Amino acid sequence: MPHPSLTNPFFLPIWFELAAVILLSMTAGIVAMKRGYDVVGVAALALLVGLGGGLIRDGIFIQQGPPGVVTNPLYIQGALLGAAVGALLGDRVERFRRVIAAVDALALGAYAAFGVQRALGSGLPIPAAILIGVVTAVGGGLLRDVITNEEPLVFRPGQFYALVALAASTLFVVLTVELAIRPTWSAGIVIVLTFVFRVLTIVFNWKTAPLAPPPQAPPSI
Amino acid sequence: MPHPSLTNPFFLPIWFELAAVILLSMTAGIVAMKRGYDVVGVAALALLVGLGGGLIRDGIFIQQGPPGVVTNPLYIQGALLGAAVGALLGDRVERFRRVIAAVDALALGAYAAFGVQRALGSGLPIPAAILIGVVTAVGGGLLRDVITNEEPLVFRPGQFYALVALAASTLFVVLTVELAIRPTWSAGIVIVLTFVFRVLTIVFNWKTAPLAPPPQAPPSI
Amino acid sequence: MPHPSLTNPFFLPIWFELAAVILLSMTAGIVAMKRGYDVVGVAALALLVGLGGGLIRDGIFIQQGPPGVVTNPLYIQGALLGAAVGALLGDRVERFRRVIAAVDALALGAYAAFGVQRALGSGLPIPAAILIGVVTAVGGGLLRDVITNEEPLVFRPGQFYALVALAASTLFVVLTVELAIRPTWSAGIVIVLTFVFRVLTIVFNWKTAPLAPPPQAPPSI
Repeated sequence: MPHPSLTNPFFLPIWFELAAVILLSMTAGIVAMKRGYDVVGVAALALLVGLGGGLIRDGIFIQQGPPGVVTNPLYIQGALLGAAVGALLGDRVERFRRVIAAVDALALGAYAAFGVQRALGSGLPIPAAILIGVVTAVGGGLLRDVITNEEPLVFRPGQFYALVALAASTLFVVLTVELAIRPTWSAGIVIVLTFVFRVLTIVFNWKTAPLAPPPQAPPSI
Repeated sequence: MPHPSLTNPFFLPIWFELAAVILLSMTAGIVAMKRGYDVVGVAALALLVGLGGGLIRDGIFIQQGPPGVVTNPLYIQGALLGAAVGALLGDRVERFRRVIAAVDALALGAYAAFGVQRALGSGLPIPAAILIGVVTAVGGGLLRDVITNEEPLVFRPGQFYALVALAASTLFVVLTVELAIRPTWSAGIVIVLTFVFRVLTIVFNWKTAPLAPPPQAPPSI
Repeated sequence: MPHPSLTNPFFLPIWFELAAVILLSMTAGIVAMKRGYDVVGVAALALLVGLGGGLIRDGIFIQQGPPGVVTNPLYIQGALLGAAVGALLGDRVERFRRVIAAVDALALGAYAAFGVQRALGSGLPIPAAILIGVVTAVGGGLLRDVITNEEPLVFRPGQFYALVALAASTLFVVLTVELAIRPTWSAGIVIVLTFVFRVLTIVFNWKTAPLAPPPQAPPSI
């Protein structure tokens, strides 16, 4: 049986995912350098952040054999390449902080679109495909935050991160399923719009509002 | 090949799991409101807590295709419904705290019974089925605590949480396998007993004892 | 179809993995006693730490049906046995700290070799097999650290932990694939060398250097 991605109408070349892996690993490399990690820690964090979204998607949700990120050595190589680039840029990162945010924004759209197409191509229903697109897009960063003991960005109030991933995943579905636009073009549109919107939220410091006023004292959960 | 749940003697309708998902998502919605999350954070935490146990069970342990919680859109809808209800109740939560504990106790028994029957129906041995029942029952809350940087309830000394999940899973095995009681009735018995026992532990503040006196100074692990 | 481990040229008996599970569960039992966990917490942490690496490997990476650690009851029994031994040793642990480090070092090599052979036996490429060997070896400890809210050892700068797991996995590949040494002998060599090297790093307190000088102030990631 050919790989489902090769026969489904939502097929996207793996370059979209590979680009996302390299970009996310770069951000991990920069963060790891800032934390004073050694070479193994830099590589480990980059592998986890870069491959995490794809691992969760293929390993837990899609379940059609070993995840693409381990069967195709290009992914591991891409993550290590991203880690090396990130580590080299690491000590110049103050000047590059907006570049990093932009890099992350590029990866977000690519990973979301690729996650949705893999799920649709595996025959999953649309709500599941959107959920998987979001998980794919935010998964690596979620693992990074959990492991480094930060409260994950995706849950922190006031951030447009998860909302943008949700919009990107939904847009890809609308473009490919409803409007029957070719997946590669749809992914391109999603990536560009996601990038532009994320950069705007960062430049203008847009915030979402919490649903309730924050409690006076920290809750005793 | 029909889905194994449809042909196995331990079959339980998905309403048991769906009810557990809605109930757990409600508790997540309340917690997220108390933390001042925005609408995306509330939905994300509810999806994670509500679907987490089923995802871990199907995605990591059972491994027979995509997890039920993504293939059947009812689960995602149920989690979002639970989140909405929880968010609406959120600011009245002081009065509802015991209701929440009871809601969680109802979900615990239902999720444990459903987890055990899925594992037995997949041909796994009984010790594995009990382990999977416990993981299913405590998984969502474990993810919630790890992600929000709390030491998980399930490991904290003095709580009957994991012990109750273990008792519920074991009881379901005894009822269905040893006593050959019909799964639906067995699950009903498990849910009622789990609920009553949990409520008693909360009302009377029963505690387990640590195996050793706690250290004077925090350990330097 | 016979289990792939039985027909592949990299076959290792499960005793290697079972020994690693028991050893890691012992360390978990000791740690749980030091933290004042009750009997359920001790057992839960031991199951998680002992079985975690194998669960992640089989459940997320290999994906050929339910993980070996749940289909074969010996693993759960081994983890509970290890937990009991660890709990009994728990209050004498000051004198046993070096024994624990050695126990962990024995598990590290065994788990890495077994992880690599399972991946190679499943037809995965060598870079993926090495990655999986490392994940298998450090996975249980990673879960333990994440769940108890410690920054994982594997990412902390100055530790040889992940580097040793990487060296062990690579060495096993070189021995079995390049030098065509029998897997059982290769695993033995890997375990002995890993053990000796880890003990040396602990006895002489060897440290790796961070790639960059640590920041003056904690980074605001």
